[in-house]
Amino acid sequence: MKGFDQQVREFTRAEMERKGVNLHFNTNIERIEPSQGAYTVHLTNGDVLEVDVVLAATGRKANIRDLGLEALGLGLDDAGKIPVNERFETALPSVLALGDLTAGPELTPVALAEAMQLVDVHFADTAPKPLDYTTIPTAVFCHPNIGTVGLSEEAAREKFANIRVYSTDFRAMKHTLSGSQERTLMKLIVDDATDVVVGAHMVGDDAGEIIQGIAIAVRAGLTKQDFDRTVGIHPTGAEEFVTLRTLTRT
Amino acid sequence: MKGFDQQVREFTRAEMERKGVNLHFNTNIERIEPSQGAYTVHLTNGDVLEVDVVLAATGRKANIRDLGLEALGLGLDDAGKIPVNERFETALPSVLALGDLTAGPELTPVALAEAMQLVDVHFADTAPKPLDYTTIPTAVFCHPNIGTVGLSEEAAREKFANIRVYSTDFRAMKHTLSGSQERTLMKLIVDDATDVVVGAHMVGDDAGEIIQGIAIAVRAGLTKQDFDRTVGIHPTGAEEFVTLRTLTRT
Repeated sequence: MKGFDQQVREFTRAEMERKGVNLHFNTNIERIEPSQGAYTVHLTNGDVLEVDVVLAATGRKANIRDLGLEALGLGLDDAGKIPVNERFETALPSVLALGDLTAGPELTPVALAEAMQLVDVHFADTAPKPLDYTTIPTAVFCHPNIGTVGLSEEAAREKFANIRVYSTDFRAMKHTLSGSQERTLMKLIVDDATDVVVGAHMVGDDAGEIIQGIAIAVRAGLTKQDFDRTVGIHPTGAEEFVTLRTLTRT
Repeated sequence: MKGFDQQVREFTRAEMERKGVNLHFNTNIERIEPSQGAYTVHLTNGDVLEVDVVLAATGRKANIRDLGLEALGLGLDDAGKIPVNERFETALPSVLALGDLTAGPELTPVALAEAMQLVDVHFADTAPKPLDYTTIPTAVFCHPNIGTVGLSEEAAREKFANIRVYSTDFRAMKHTLSGSQERTLMKLIVDDATDVVVGAHMVGDDAGEIIQGIAIAVRAGLTKQDFDRTVGIHPTGAEEFVTLRTLTRT
């Protein structure tokens, strides 16, 4: 969860642990041994776990082997990505690249947006504005879900002289019926000088679905007042994003 | 569902019928008779139904009896509402009224917004802009849910010379696992002259949650281009609102 808002990270950790998930930080898998139909997993910190299943998520690499990049003299950067300019041109301008094999978020919709941008850059009558990589929304489909767009509180604090943070942490109304103790976190970060909402974060049910619309507002540079002047839909979780009035901290 | 977008109404009807709900239109309950622990319901169109439970939703009225309005000489309009001006003042300016007992949508968040507006109108240093009643989002928590903000296609066609309608109707990805045949409808109405999104409608899971963020964008007058330039969150249902590229009709 590196780069995510610190409060979001801590809240997610607490909610996952409440559900019975045991998290082990700052360690890795050293070796895995079969053990009576299950597995014994030795971690680099010395811990030993008996488990039924191991799913090791090691990240992803672009599938560029045998593409012939070396024959063309196209090198990769230190991160294993192909350098391109704003027109998606490599060092050989007739060779274009985008998506997971160039720098930037490894997200399907980013590759899609870059493909549409590439077409406009090369074939449209008027040059499009460059893609804005600072307001790309994303979700993590853990339980509870995380949805986020724009800057973390920490990044906003570095970028702006003064910020305002509005947050709320509540038990969703439906859980008064379900009995679940699961809580929801919602948070807006505002640049104090301009009133622009520069970050929106949520941990809770349907966070990805809810943040998508919020992302349209954040990308367009709408203000906290724009949020406040939108009427809520009651009873929903999302309505908290337009009814946050109490300043949590500055 | 009077006043809702016609396509939304027809889609909702079809989806409810698919779930096994029998709808009876243009009729009312004439009388109800007990019948062996259940009920026999006679409809005004002559139909007779045998049912376990009857829930008759007759609408709501403001709880104003015994408030003393008559003693003050404050009358009601034909709809049984108290007339007020933009400052929420009745014919007696020292008596203020808002929410369900004045004209306008009978929604909790509208009453809340009016209360905050009332405070600003009477006590803030600068006069606030009037509330915008044309972009109040709302949800109907039937199955599937309906979420909507702004104008229906029919109302937009009356108001603007030319409109563009973008819509999609799909089976949510999760239902390829659940086996449910439930479909989702999403629809944007755009004023062709300005590119402003003047209406957004959805029928499907979490429509209320999803429309809340969309409502911030619609209330602020954002354009179809603003929607299109927002990156999607994959895989969600809501991402369809920022990836609608094919014109359904004009």
